[in-house]
Amino acid sequence: MEHSLRHRASEAIDPEMRQESGLSPFNQLVVSAILGLVLIGVLETEVHFIRSFGGLSDLLKTVLFVFFAAEYLLRLWTAGLNPRFRNALHYAVTPSALLDLAVLITFALPYLGLETTVFRLLQLLRLLRLARIGRYSRAMNLVVEAIRSRGTELILSFAFALTLMLGAATLLYIVEGPTQPAAFGSIPRAMWWAVETLTTVGYGDAVPVTPLGRILAAVTALCGIGFIALPTGILASAFSDALRRAREERAHGHPD
Amino acid sequence: MEHSLRHRASEAIDPEMRQESGLSPFNQLVVSAILGLVLIGVLETEVHFIRSFGGLSDLLKTVLFVFFAAEYLLRLWTAGLNPRFRNALHYAVTPSALLDLAVLITFALPYLGLETTVFRLLQLLRLLRLARIGRYSRAMNLVVEAIRSRGTELILSFAFALTLMLGAATLLYIVEGPTQPAAFGSIPRAMWWAVETLTTVGYGDAVPVTPLGRILAAVTALCGIGFIALPTGILASAFSDALRRAREERAHGHPD
Amino acid sequence: MEHSLRHRASEAIDPEMRQESGLSPFNQLVVSAILGLVLIGVLETEVHFIRSFGGLSDLLKTVLFVFFAAEYLLRLWTAGLNPRFRNALHYAVTPSALLDLAVLITFALPYLGLETTVFRLLQLLRLLRLARIGRYSRAMNLVVEAIRSRGTELILSFAFALTLMLGAATLLYIVEGPTQPAAFGSIPRAMWWAVETLTTVGYGDAVPVTPLGRILAAVTALCGIGFIALPTGILASAFSDALRRAREERAHGHPD
Amino acid sequence: MEHSLRHRASEAIDPEMRQESGLSPFNQLVVSAILGLVLIGVLETEVHFIRSFGGLSDLLKTVLFVFFAAEYLLRLWTAGLNPRFRNALHYAVTPSALLDLAVLITFALPYLGLETTVFRLLQLLRLLRLARIGRYSRAMNLVVEAIRSRGTELILSFAFALTLMLGAATLLYIVEGPTQPAAFGSIPRAMWWAVETLTTVGYGDAVPVTPLGRILAAVTALCGIGFIALPTGILASAFSDALRRAREERAHGHPD
Repeated sequence: MEHSLRHRASEAIDPEMRQESGLSPFNQLVVSAILGLVLIGVLETEVHFIRSFGGLSDLLKTVLFVFFAAEYLLRLWTAGLNPRFRNALHYAVTPSALLDLAVLITFALPYLGLETTVFRLLQLLRLLRLARIGRYSRAMNLVVEAIRSRGTELILSFAFALTLMLGAATLLYIVEGPTQPAAFGSIPRAMWWAVETLTTVGYGDAVPVTPLGRILAAVTALCGIGFIALPTGILASAFSDALRRAREERAHGHPD
Repeated sequence: MEHSLRHRASEAIDPEMRQESGLSPFNQLVVSAILGLVLIGVLETEVHFIRSFGGLSDLLKTVLFVFFAAEYLLRLWTAGLNPRFRNALHYAVTPSALLDLAVLITFALPYLGLETTVFRLLQLLRLLRLARIGRYSRAMNLVVEAIRSRGTELILSFAFALTLMLGAATLLYIVEGPTQPAAFGSIPRAMWWAVETLTTVGYGDAVPVTPLGRILAAVTALCGIGFIALPTGILASAFSDALRRAREERAHGHPD
Repeated sequence: MEHSLRHRASEAIDPEMRQESGLSPFNQLVVSAILGLVLIGVLETEVHFIRSFGGLSDLLKTVLFVFFAAEYLLRLWTAGLNPRFRNALHYAVTPSALLDLAVLITFALPYLGLETTVFRLLQLLRLLRLARIGRYSRAMNLVVEAIRSRGTELILSFAFALTLMLGAATLLYIVEGPTQPAAFGSIPRAMWWAVETLTTVGYGDAVPVTPLGRILAAVTALCGIGFIALPTGILASAFSDALRRAREERAHGHPD
Repeated sequence: MEHSLRHRASEAIDPEMRQESGLSPFNQLVVSAILGLVLIGVLETEVHFIRSFGGLSDLLKTVLFVFFAAEYLLRLWTAGLNPRFRNALHYAVTPSALLDLAVLITFALPYLGLETTVFRLLQLLRLLRLARIGRYSRAMNLVVEAIRSRGTELILSFAFALTLMLGAATLLYIVEGPTQPAAFGSIPRAMWWAVETLTTVGYGDAVPVTPLGRILAAVTALCGIGFIALPTGILASAFSDALRRAREERAHGHPD
C-alpha cells in the first residue's frame, strides 16, 4: 500500500517517471507556486504594496514555504524510484535538488536581515527543469538551434554594430562635446547616446543640438535601421532553415 | 412580388445568400455606417469637437440609429430565407443578432446618463462577421495559421523576454533605486522602465543616471534588438512556410 | 550634319533612344541638377542659410533655370526622332513634358510672391521617369510585386493595428483622462499616444502615470512588437517568394 | 637554431604561415592588446577616469607601446619567410605594415600636443586583417554577399525613405513652422524631426502640437514601420537565398 502510494507520488512529482506527456497536475501547481512566489517577491519591493497588502503577502509566503518544504521532502522520498538515483542522498546532492534547498533557505534570509530579491530570482531557474518536456522542449531546441547555427553571423553583426557605435560616439564627442559636456563630454558618455540611438530607444536625455551633430546623428539613426534589420534577417532565414531541416528529418524517418 | 422583393433583400443583406463574391452594395453601406458611428463616438470625447460640431454629430447619430434599426428589422424579415435559421425568432437569438440589438441599445444609453464609449467599440465586432468573406477571409486564415503554427516558439520568446525584463528591472532597482526612488524605487516601477527600453519605445520619463545603471541599461537595450528580431524572424519563416504549403495544396488538387 | 547632331542629341537625352544600358552622361547631369535644385529649395527655407549663402543660392538657381530651359528645348527638338511621338507638339502635351514645363514655371513663382516649396518637390517626380531603366526598374518591379502580392495581408495587419490602437486609446482615455486631461482627455488625444507607443517612437510628451495606465501601456508596447513583426514577416516571405518566382521564370525560358 | 626560431616566430605571427586554422596564441594576445588600447583611448576622454586611474592608464599605454613596437620589429624580421614578400623592406611598404607604423606613431602624438582620439580608432582597422581567417571570413562573405545581392533593392528603399522623409518634413514645416519656429521653422530643421520619427528613435525634442501636425506625424510614424520592415524583409530573403546557394554549391562538389 505504502509502496503503491510512493509510486503514484513519484509519477506525480518526477516528470521522468510520468507515462503521459505534459506536466502532471502536481507539477502544474508547483509552477504556479513558483510564479506566485516570484510575483510576491517583486511586489514586496513596492512600499505602497507592503502598506496595503503586507499581511496578506506574509501569510502567502508562509503557505508557500510549507508547500515548497513538503515538495522537497516528497522529492527526497520518491527519488529512489528513479533509476538515475541510488537513494535519497544521491538525489539530494544533484544541482537541481541543491537549487530547491537554496530556494527554501531564501525564506529564512529576511529574519537574518538580508536582502532576498536577487535570490528569489533563483526560483525562475527551477522552471527550466520543468520546461524540459514535450513540445516546449522541441520549440526551445528549434529556437536555440536557429540562433546557434548563425552564431558567427550574429557575433559579426554585433561586432559591426559595436564599431559603428564607437565611431558615432567618437564623432559626436568631438562635435557636440564642447557644447554639451554633460552628455557628450567624453566618449563613454557619448556611447550612452550612441546605444540609445542605434537601438532606436531614444530616451531624449542626450540629443545633439549643433547642425553638424544632428547630421551625424541622422546618419547614425538611419544605420540603426540596418542594425535591427541585419540580425532580424539572419534569424528569419535561420528559423526557416531550421524548420525545413526538422521537417526533412522527420520525412526521411530519422528519429528525434 | 413581395416574395421576390424579400429574396432580393436577403441577397443584398445576408452575405451567405449572395451569389457573387465580395460585399453587396448594401453591406458596403453598413460597413461605412459602422465606421462612421465609431468615428463619431471617438470624436465626441473631444470637447473642442463637441463645441464646434456637436449639433451635426447629434444629427448624424439620429440618422445612423434609424439606419441600423431599419437594417435590424430587414435582417429579421429576411432571416427565414437562409436555411440555417428556422424563422426570424431563431435568428434573433444568434450571437450576431444579439450583438446588433446591443448596438441599437447603446444609442439609448446617453439618455440614461451612462458612458457609451466602451460599448461603441462593440460595433467593431460587427465588422468581423462581414469580413468573413472572400480573399480577406483567406488572407486572415493565412495570418492566423502562420501565427498559430509557431505558437509555442512565440510563447517561449515571450517568456524569455519576460524573464529578461524581470532581470533587468531587478538589477536597475538595486543600482538606480537609491538615486531615483520615484522611477526605480521598486521592481514594479523599474519594470515600467524595462518595458519601455526592451520594446525600444523610450519615452524618457525613467532614465538611469549612474554609470553602472547606464551600462546595464545599454546591455538591456541591445538585448531589446533580439527581443524584436526573434518574433519577427519566427513570423517571417512562418509566413513563407504557410504560403508554400497553401500553394502546394492547390497544386496537388486538394480543395480549399 | 545637323541631322547627325540631332540624332546624337536624341541618344544623349532620350533614354528610350539610347543603345547602351544605363543613364547617359547628359541624363546623369540632369539627375544631379534636379537633386541640386531640390537641395537648394530645402536649404532656402532656413534663415541662417539665406543670411550666409543667399547670393550663391540665387546664382545657382539662375544657372539651373538656364540649364532646365535648355534641356526642355532640346527635348522638344529631338522628340520627333522617337517613333512614339509624331512631332514636338505631340511630345509637349505628354504628362512628362508638362511636368518639365511646370518645373520651369516654379522658377517664376517667387517673383509673383508665391510659396514655391511644395512645387519644388514636383521635381522629384521627374526622377521617376529617368529611374525607369535597367536594373533599378527590375528591382522596383520586384519590390512593388512583393508588396502587391501580400496587399490583402498587409491591409489586414493594418486594420488589426488600427483596432488595437483604438482599443488602447479608449482604455487610456478612461484610465488616464481624469489625471492628465491635456494628453489623455479625449480619445483623439489618446490616439496620439497610442500611435507613438505602438510604432515605438515614444517622444515622451504623453506618458501614463497611474499604475493601471502603465500596465495597459506596457501591454500596448509589447503588442507594438507584433505590430512591427507582422508586416516585416509578411514582407520578408513576399520577397523570397517574388525572387524565387523570378528565378524560376528565367530558368524555364520565359522572357522578361 | 636561429633559423628554426625565426620559422617558429613566423608561424606564430603571420596567419598566412600558420598550419593550423584559427588565431595563434600570439595573435590572440595582439587582438586583446588592440582592444585594450582602444578601451584605454575611449576611457581617457572621461575626466573622472583620468582623475582616478590616470597613472595606471599611462603605465598600461607604455607597456602596450613596447609590446606593439616589439610586434612590429618581429613582423619585419619574419616577413622574408612569407613568399609574398621579397624582404623586410618590401613588407614595410605594404598598407598593413604602414598602418602598424602609423599606430606606433600615434603614441608620440600627445607629447606633440595633438589630439589622438580619432587616430586611435585606426587600430580597429588592424583587426580587419586578423579577422580575415577561418569561419569569421566565411560568415562575413555570407553577410556581405547577402547585402550586395540586394544592393539595388536596398538603395531603392533608401531613396524611397529619403523621399518620404523630405515630404513629411516639408508638410510639417508648413503646418508646425509658424507655431514652433525652433523645431520646425525650416525644412532642414523639420528633417531632424522626420529622421527621428521614421527611424522610431523619438528623442522628443521636436514634437508636433497642432492637431493637423499630429495627424501628419501619425501617418509618418506608421510609414516608419514600413521603413523598417522593407529593408528587413529584403535582407531576410537575401540571407536565406545566399545560404541555400552556399549549401547547393557544397552539395554539387564546387570548392570554396
